[in-house]
Amino acid sequence: MKIAILGGTGEQGPGLALRLAIAGEEVIIGSRSKERAEAAAAELNKELGGTRIKGLENPQAAAAAEIVMMTVPYSAHLSTLETVKAAVQSKIFVDVSVPLDPENPRRMKMPPAGSATEEAQEFLGPNTKVVAAFQNVAAHLLRDAQHSIDCDILVCGNDAEAKKTVLGLITKMGMQGYDVGTVDSARVVEALTSILIRLNIRHKVKGAGIRLTGLPR
Amino acid sequence: MKIAILGGTGEQGPGLALRLAIAGEEVIIGSRSKERAEAAAAELNKELGGTRIKGLENPQAAAAAEIVMMTVPYSAHLSTLETVKAAVQSKIFVDVSVPLDPENPRRMKMPPAGSATEEAQEFLGPNTKVVAAFQNVAAHLLRDAQHSIDCDILVCGNDAEAKKTVLGLITKMGMQGYDVGTVDSARVVEALTSILIRLNIRHKVKGAGIRLTGLPR
Repeated sequence: MKIAILGGTGEQGPGLALRLAIAGEEVIIGSRSKERAEAAAAELNKELGGTRIKGLENPQAAAAAEIVMMTVPYSAHLSTLETVKAAVQSKIFVDVSVPLDPENPRRMKMPPAGSATEEAQEFLGPNTKVVAAFQNVAAHLLRDAQHSIDCDILVCGNDAEAKKTVLGLITKMGMQGYDVGTVDSARVVEALTSILIRLNIRHKVKGAGIRLTGLPR
Repeated sequence: MKIAILGGTGEQGPGLALRLAIAGEEVIIGSRSKERAEAAAAELNKELGGTRIKGLENPQAAAAAEIVMMTVPYSAHLSTLETVKAAVQSKIFVDVSVPLDPENPRRMKMPPAGSATEEAQEFLGPNTKVVAAFQNVAAHLLRDAQHSIDCDILVCGNDAEAKKTVLGLITKMGMQGYDVGTVDSARVVEALTSILIRLNIRHKVKGAGIRLTGLPR
């Protein structure tokens, strides 16, 4: 599948691109600048030994892909959504945003919609299948393809088929995903990140994560 | 230590009482009815082969204890707090409440304070050391003293010493606790329960829980 990663030069972007490419998907890194997107793609391709990853501006990346993931900092959430709204209609849109309080990243500052993912679903409209995923996994662990990820991926959204597709990708990327319900579960999934940040600070580590227990794996 | 468990005849209460008693603590089950509290205590004492657990009405239980835990359903949260406000001043108060939407237990209905625990802290005042804990662990697993709990206990609150005391009790009860920050983290800790309920329903199990990863255990 062709998968765009908007804001793919930032935190979670390169790791997602790398693991999707290793899983055999065709990846397009999107950025506000085509040059930065291409540079990020070139760096990952060098690591992969190929040309599987491309770089494009966000709107072109979104238009070229079947599935669009977005990993921009929350401050660019709505403005980036605006530039790709037309291109993502009827597609699966995976929101990876975490609305941390810019004045204190240990706290959340949830948008009026309840969560970034709900905001995206409202803004993009009912034709776009918005799914939340990958908020809780540490960027540097995702980026290290040799590292097996000890963090489950909580997936939520209103479209069951879209969630199934995303869960399939997660499996191909070597991680364990769980469907945790409708889009409003994103309030918890996103906010969990602030708890993991607090734990990272307290324990002077970088990769706190979570595993679900008592469930089939 | 003398520990009261208000609403101790309900969901999480008996399991907490049992495990605290096994850990060597003196436990007082509180209830609106002294008879029901005594009956619950008698049942647990029978299992323990002793008389370590007592039963009292909630206000008397709170007055007699050094640490007060409250496990009432959220619908009785404020009304129970009112009956024990005087008795818990300057004590550690462990709130186990989860403000689920009474019309749909897969959803949260957070009080204006942000969470039940913050509501308790506001209502009881700054002299009471309010701590959140035990929201995510399944009641029937807690109740089965033979069952080793595969669920970490997330602990939050504004008083560091109080959290340390509660974390110490959690260790004595055979579980792993983590300090996840100030009282506002309770918004996430409490809400996580709705996600676990969704997972229980989806996977037809009863004991979904969470483990933190990437941290010292």
